[in-house]
Amino acid sequence: MENQPQKPRVVIVGGGFGGLEAAKKLGDKPVEVTLIDRTNYHLFQPLLYQVATAALSPADIAAPLRAVLTDFRNIEVMFAEVTAIDVAAKRVSTTDREIPYDYLILATGSRHSYFGNDQWEKLAPGLKSLEDAVEIRRRLLMAFEYAEKIPDEAARRAAMTFAIIGGGPTGVEMAGAIAEIARYTLAKDFKHIDPSQARVILIEGDKRVLSGFPEDLSESALKQLREVGVEVITGVHASNLTEEGLEVKGEFIPCRVKIWAAGNTASAVGKSLGVAVDRAGRVIVNNDLTIPGRPEVQVIGDLAHFEHDTDEPLPGVSPVAMQQGRHAAQNILTMIEGLKPRRFWYRNKGSMATIGRNKAVADLNLAHLSGFPAWLVWLFVHILFLVGFRNRVAVLLQWAWAYVTFNKGARLITRNFQAEMRPPT
Amino acid sequence: MENQPQKPRVVIVGGGFGGLEAAKKLGDKPVEVTLIDRTNYHLFQPLLYQVATAALSPADIAAPLRAVLTDFRNIEVMFAEVTAIDVAAKRVSTTDREIPYDYLILATGSRHSYFGNDQWEKLAPGLKSLEDAVEIRRRLLMAFEYAEKIPDEAARRAAMTFAIIGGGPTGVEMAGAIAEIARYTLAKDFKHIDPSQARVILIEGDKRVLSGFPEDLSESALKQLREVGVEVITGVHASNLTEEGLEVKGEFIPCRVKIWAAGNTASAVGKSLGVAVDRAGRVIVNNDLTIPGRPEVQVIGDLAHFEHDTDEPLPGVSPVAMQQGRHAAQNILTMIEGLKPRRFWYRNKGSMATIGRNKAVADLNLAHLSGFPAWLVWLFVHILFLVGFRNRVAVLLQWAWAYVTFNKGARLITRNFQAEMRPPT
Repeated sequence: MENQPQKPRVVIVGGGFGGLEAAKKLGDKPVEVTLIDRTNYHLFQPLLYQVATAALSPADIAAPLRAVLTDFRNIEVMFAEVTAIDVAAKRVSTTDREIPYDYLILATGSRHSYFGNDQWEKLAPGLKSLEDAVEIRRRLLMAFEYAEKIPDEAARRAAMTFAIIGGGPTGVEMAGAIAEIARYTLAKDFKHIDPSQARVILIEGDKRVLSGFPEDLSESALKQLREVGVEVITGVHASNLTEEGLEVKGEFIPCRVKIWAAGNTASAVGKSLGVAVDRAGRVIVNNDLTIPGRPEVQVIGDLAHFEHDTDEPLPGVSPVAMQQGRHAAQNILTMIEGLKPRRFWYRNKGSMATIGRNKAVADLNLAHLSGFPAWLVWLFVHILFLVGFRNRVAVLLQWAWAYVTFNKGARLITRNFQAEMRPPT
Repeated sequence: MENQPQKPRVVIVGGGFGGLEAAKKLGDKPVEVTLIDRTNYHLFQPLLYQVATAALSPADIAAPLRAVLTDFRNIEVMFAEVTAIDVAAKRVSTTDREIPYDYLILATGSRHSYFGNDQWEKLAPGLKSLEDAVEIRRRLLMAFEYAEKIPDEAARRAAMTFAIIGGGPTGVEMAGAIAEIARYTLAKDFKHIDPSQARVILIEGDKRVLSGFPEDLSESALKQLREVGVEVITGVHASNLTEEGLEVKGEFIPCRVKIWAAGNTASAVGKSLGVAVDRAGRVIVNNDLTIPGRPEVQVIGDLAHFEHDTDEPLPGVSPVAMQQGRHAAQNILTMIEGLKPRRFWYRNKGSMATIGRNKAVADLNLAHLSGFPAWLVWLFVHILFLVGFRNRVAVLLQWAWAYVTFNKGARLITRNFQAEMRPPT
């Protein structure tokens, strides 16, 4: 630790889309890179909802960081949790040791926000990590198992009612996937219940679902959601979440499984930098991604609040994080040459959300697609960007199988289930 | 529950190899079948070590019981845990309710036995369930991550020493797979350690590994294990297991990860029947698989102690369980016709164990195979018997990928890792 290497030392915190792109860009460049993450894998978050709905296995959408970066001799992967950052001393503290840096890229992302109702987290888990996804999968499958066994009609209906809170892309995708699993995959597997009678309710506080999309696509998404049997309620907030259900517009809806897709808050590390953050805890960055007064520190992805030409900060999506990751890496190479970091421009190539089999919306700027064509584009883009050849083939194969048979393979209930087997009283 | 159905009611407890075969055999027959399991899937246990060593995902070797049996309208799958069996009242109690039966097949299998040292379970987990496999995978991968970070040379060596206690098929397979992952898969992924320097120690109390196999194959297995770099110690028992290591022949071996593959004890349900059990808790069954005095109750698989022509009970392997499952089902159909249950004969088609890439032994009765031919037979048989077309294709694809690239895809460390990150002190 004492003998400083000759080459500038770059520390990247976070191996998500932003951090990984930055690392790759710095591979084989005249810098020593340490990539720190508290998991040992890069997670392809856009497909996390497919793990939560039993279509894919965790390993299908996760690639070991060491394996992805194994060919770059100047990149070290460190499996550790960052506990503090001392920007004055240029030092990152982890659970194991302190790491000095010449340049720092912070890409630690975000978690769910329950808007002050933190007690809701256990009642309505969000979907950010593999652990979240496996927990939601367990709750979904357990709800049907429970409904199959319980003689009480009201309890059975509550077990077969699923509420998704938040109508952004994640909420829309979860609602569509749950409706499909109930109507097709599980339809014939039970003797005492008819899974296709399950209620799936999507609750969005805004006036429309996918409020970040153009209005015509929101409307199309709404129509497609209703086609797969999702009940969509907009313009209201869910409240009074309990084990037994939740309240919408003064009406109590008994429901066992609740899923949170309503809000994000940036990783706490942003607040420790001593610079301004927005209401969601995101670091307000300069237009070159550096933080005020510290050009050697850059913040990217979900952790950054970057205002382009509008007053709206860039959304927390993977293309933003990836472009910022590459830009931050290039900035470092530029600064090493004694030049100033350059302004970041986001090239928006569009956005997409899928509702189910042959159902999606895609905003490609020049064209708005709905239904089958949008779904094909979604499929193509997601396979294209999925990390690692092995993962691509494995996922394609499982999708093809599921498409032909309506079956989903990863329907495993793991971990201790005893607590879940009792009525929620 | 009150209105007894016209058709005889068969309850099968356990959806492993024995229980599942029995259920399939009774599918569409004039009986009402309830299959009870405390997991919602059938587990292909012979490949569990591949989940533990990051080659396969849990879902690759598990098939949802409901999906496997969905076409049989006379079979109900119940996801519950059996708490007691009242053979006088012909009733099975579960965590949810009581289920009456006319015929009962018990196939609840076995767990590890620590021979009275139950405190060793946490120190050296065994390999029976998916949870076990994921936990062992986590410990293996964490050991390398820990070694990469720790500056202390002795602690690093302890982290890179792996002890497998028990040299039966499971122990041999685990030892071979760990040696391979260290030498090939992880070889280039670290900067501060050389994973190929890992020590893998296999400890067997008997004079030879694979003591259930013919002697020439034991010797061949020993040779092949040494070829992949496994240190084999036979004729001694491991003792004094602690966090820091274990003792063999009076010598203390510092090692962080210990895996138990040394002994089994039958599921506790066997002892509750009121009939004789052997030392391992297995129910001593009649030669027709029924229990003394209760022809309507049959016990099969790992839970049964069945003596064929010799004094040795049949081994706890899947072919025995499957043949007994089919036989027990046929016995029920025979008894329904008013005839007596028939004697069970085991047709031993051979046994196999794999050591690694191109390395295995196979006892096919007429021929003893070693190395590549044995490995090919092993591959063929395991793919052939893997439940479900989807699982077969997924596993084949991943094996092909791993064979060509030496890579393993499922290298995920999940769950809270904080506790593991500290030195074991």
